[in-house]
Amino acid sequence: MTTLDPEVAARLKRNADGLVCAVAQRRGTGEVLMVAWMDDEALALTLETRNATYFSRSRGKLWVKGETSGHTQRVHEVRLDCDGDTILLVVDQEGAACHTGAATCFDKDRLL
Amino acid sequence: MTTLDPEVAARLKRNADGLVCAVAQRRGTGEVLMVAWMDDEALALTLETRNATYFSRSRGKLWVKGETSGHTQRVHEVRLDCDGDTILLVVDQEGAACHTGAATCFDKDRLL
Repeated sequence: MTTLDPEVAARLKRNADGLVCAVAQRRGTGEVLMVAWMDDEALALTLETRNATYFSRSRGKLWVKGETSGHTQRVHEVRLDCDGDTILLVVDQEGAACHTGAATCFDKDRLL
Repeated sequence: MTTLDPEVAARLKRNADGLVCAVAQRRGTGEVLMVAWMDDEALALTLETRNATYFSRSRGKLWVKGETSGHTQRVHEVRLDCDGDTILLVVDQEGAACHTGAATCFDKDRLL
């Protein structure tokens, strides 16, 4: 198991499930691609491998983005927010970010 | 109480606390400003007034962004993600988005 730098771990404010929110943004255009969740190991792996890795709440396990679809995210920046409960990833997205095949998870349903 | 359009409400996938995640992004630059939470009423008010309104988990009540600081968010677009649990707001931010006075909540702590 890859462990997270204790200094970083100490700054995280995890929810009741031990997770922090993660927003993936496309490098260059700034498009918001998707929002997912990370546990400490997902964040440690993301920092170490630079391949965005999340924790799947539905499957209850780590999930390397694109491991089956090929739609990987190469990570260029990782930022933690002011209260330690949200991560921002700046990524180069391979192919579609959304499992529906859309470029981003926010493409299809505009309320305003 | 302002109520949410039932067709929109039916598409939301709320967490155990009845909330969806909300990402605010600056119009034009695409900067991710902050991440917060909304209940149905916060979303309804945001759509109706175009002033970003969230649900404060710490205070347990609605919170019009900038109501005390003046750092309001004028909302230009609202999008719902593919699985209905995250909202993307495209906003014109007045002043600092972060309560620390930083332009965004992600300015100060870069992990990579």
